[in-house]
Amino acid sequence: MAASTNSFLIGNQTQIPSLKPKSISQSFIHFTKPNTINLTTRTTSISIRCASTTVGSEQRVFNFAAGPAALPENVLLKAQSDLYNWRGSGMSVMEMSHRGKEFLSIIQKAESDLRQLLEIPSEYSVLFLQGGATTQFAALPLNLCKSDDSVDYIVTGSWGDKAFKEAKKYCNPKVIWSGKSEKYTKVPSFDGLEQTSHAKYLHICANETIHGVEFKDYPVVKNPDGILIADMSSNFCSKPVDVSKFGVIYAGAQKNVGPSGVTIVIIRKDLIGNARDITPVMLDYKIHDENSSLYNTPPCFGIYMCGLVFDDLLEQGGLKEVEKKNQRKAMLLYNAIDESRGFFRCPVEKSVRSLMNVPFTLEKSELEAEFIKEAAKEKMVQLKGHRSVGGMRASIYNAMPLAGVEKLVAFMKDFQARHA
Amino acid sequence: MAASTNSFLIGNQTQIPSLKPKSISQSFIHFTKPNTINLTTRTTSISIRCASTTVGSEQRVFNFAAGPAALPENVLLKAQSDLYNWRGSGMSVMEMSHRGKEFLSIIQKAESDLRQLLEIPSEYSVLFLQGGATTQFAALPLNLCKSDDSVDYIVTGSWGDKAFKEAKKYCNPKVIWSGKSEKYTKVPSFDGLEQTSHAKYLHICANETIHGVEFKDYPVVKNPDGILIADMSSNFCSKPVDVSKFGVIYAGAQKNVGPSGVTIVIIRKDLIGNARDITPVMLDYKIHDENSSLYNTPPCFGIYMCGLVFDDLLEQGGLKEVEKKNQRKAMLLYNAIDESRGFFRCPVEKSVRSLMNVPFTLEKSELEAEFIKEAAKEKMVQLKGHRSVGGMRASIYNAMPLAGVEKLVAFMKDFQARHA
Repeated sequence: MAASTNSFLIGNQTQIPSLKPKSISQSFIHFTKPNTINLTTRTTSISIRCASTTVGSEQRVFNFAAGPAALPENVLLKAQSDLYNWRGSGMSVMEMSHRGKEFLSIIQKAESDLRQLLEIPSEYSVLFLQGGATTQFAALPLNLCKSDDSVDYIVTGSWGDKAFKEAKKYCNPKVIWSGKSEKYTKVPSFDGLEQTSHAKYLHICANETIHGVEFKDYPVVKNPDGILIADMSSNFCSKPVDVSKFGVIYAGAQKNVGPSGVTIVIIRKDLIGNARDITPVMLDYKIHDENSSLYNTPPCFGIYMCGLVFDDLLEQGGLKEVEKKNQRKAMLLYNAIDESRGFFRCPVEKSVRSLMNVPFTLEKSELEAEFIKEAAKEKMVQLKGHRSVGGMRASIYNAMPLAGVEKLVAFMKDFQARHA
Repeated sequence: MAASTNSFLIGNQTQIPSLKPKSISQSFIHFTKPNTINLTTRTTSISIRCASTTVGSEQRVFNFAAGPAALPENVLLKAQSDLYNWRGSGMSVMEMSHRGKEFLSIIQKAESDLRQLLEIPSEYSVLFLQGGATTQFAALPLNLCKSDDSVDYIVTGSWGDKAFKEAKKYCNPKVIWSGKSEKYTKVPSFDGLEQTSHAKYLHICANETIHGVEFKDYPVVKNPDGILIADMSSNFCSKPVDVSKFGVIYAGAQKNVGPSGVTIVIIRKDLIGNARDITPVMLDYKIHDENSSLYNTPPCFGIYMCGLVFDDLLEQGGLKEVEKKNQRKAMLLYNAIDESRGFFRCPVEKSVRSLMNVPFTLEKSELEAEFIKEAAKEKMVQLKGHRSVGGMRASIYNAMPLAGVEKLVAFMKDFQARHA
């Protein structure tokens, strides 16, 4: 964030490299003296519209929300620049027909970039849908099962549990492992799993947003005709993933890759086309696949935002580089907790701690409200833990800069020094 | 649109009254000579971020798309101004937790303003959902019917037909009138309707986007326990509506009130709570009503945009004033068609012609492609008719300025003069 303090972003004189406005090529900006700008244009007919008058980075907060969550600063600035008139089209992305050439170029590039990021094999379809992961909780059994089919769920937190409960409406799901009795702090050993031999699929939540538990590897499905399905909402595109291990990967966008309102489904093509008669047309993968996600009007602006994020992730060097950054941030924060001699505590087993969501408590729980309040005063917001678990939670998705975690860690040490 | 040509929108010196940036109060802009700006601030610590470098109104197009469609220019500029840092919160609306006080204030104001606009009685709930009207085609019977319940559909165009077909999965729907044989150019006389005596509901599409057929009044449901349901996607908030006549009104936002990705459902509260067991949780009105549309993460930015539009419609004087503007625009365009001595033709029966979507053809159909191409050169875009009906279609929703229709009419007359 600091990089863009005091930067001006008019025309093509931007100081943020990945912001490349194209709508004006004839405007120039000159600093003449502090706090004065002269802006000139070569032609007389152009009026510059500086609707954006937000204040520099010093007024941005470090936003630790679990989702919707922080977006990359340069992506926001690019979106702001394009909002009124996308690439000289005379329209906002929000105003474009979803069947026009402008939006088609946006959604096609978004898909192509996502395919490159995750190295998605060609036998998988990528769908841009609506309704969040919660809609997929129903869509999965409706598309993949008959009413008496068995399916398995590993439940490592609240979201896996919700997915299981929704499946009960449509098939015969079984929880083959639950971490509930240990307050969702673990992932099971895969060797000991008692999978149903004929289960159509095994479902996991790859990263539990509330509990901070993340799969570091993935179980192999026992049924040779079965598939592995993962809800990756909260660690999607945070690290490389071998897509070929999965039948379906799905994710709400609002953690790592965009605003809320977009759900991405990556599905092996041979699994498409078996939806049950009672499936609402909008939950039928075949409909969306045949229509390239344009059966009805998609969430165009959200897809556009995801596309900007994908582009940004590629510019960062792809998901291997992104993972390194996420590991560094997470290590910094977990080390601060573990080295606090019990002042801060993270309940999650070390080997499966999430790189994305870091829940922690205070030994003196009566100080937690004070901690959250003081942090907010220091412009570190949304640190309160989920209402179901309490304590604190720092969500440090891709877009959380290292500086945000460093500031939080410094604050934690200072807070401890004052209250130990 | 013309009003803001050559206007500068930095800080609080905006020339568009309804744009009220709040994030900077200390910046001033002075015109010193043409095409030069001096921007000064009172403090030295502020960096102004003019990410927006879009070009003035002369580069905007008149966008006649059927949806997603044109949005009010001042709403777009306000959204652009707020995008990077909403009201000094240090966050974009896209980054906010949907449970935080900032977003709660946004969604609550949006609902409150919509209630004021449509004078929605207190016994109705307002839900902000996802998935478009197409998702509601399934949600309606799933929430309101048992599998053997009878329901009636009046089909005045493609959307009503789609709604009927989806209902066949879940109950016993009957088309009691169809305009198909007359190419969807009419609305039936209500007197002659043969309604099913025990139908749980009567469904209409209040405005058929593709065919340009609009109900000017509404039928009374024969069954005293039945309700009237209307898909108002393409004329929502274009005129006053007596909500109390309906059990459910629903609308995709992307025509008159926002970007795609938001669906608004207005439902009488006593109808909520009867969803069938097979209803996906995300299609259950009770879940969304109990959670004030926050059961899972809603499409926050889209809801925010709808809120800006509602605010704008109230500032225009409410829906009575909006309807007057829409009537004037539509009359101008229909008159041009009817006075062309058959050069232009609108197939829709005059009494039910839509104020929103104006389909028309050329007597010399071989000139239609040329018409559309020439119009696009003149910055009037998206005039091609739906692929299922051909010809042209001018969608003139709330956000289409009178100037856009005037320009189209002038072009039509000129085109006729050159080709008659």
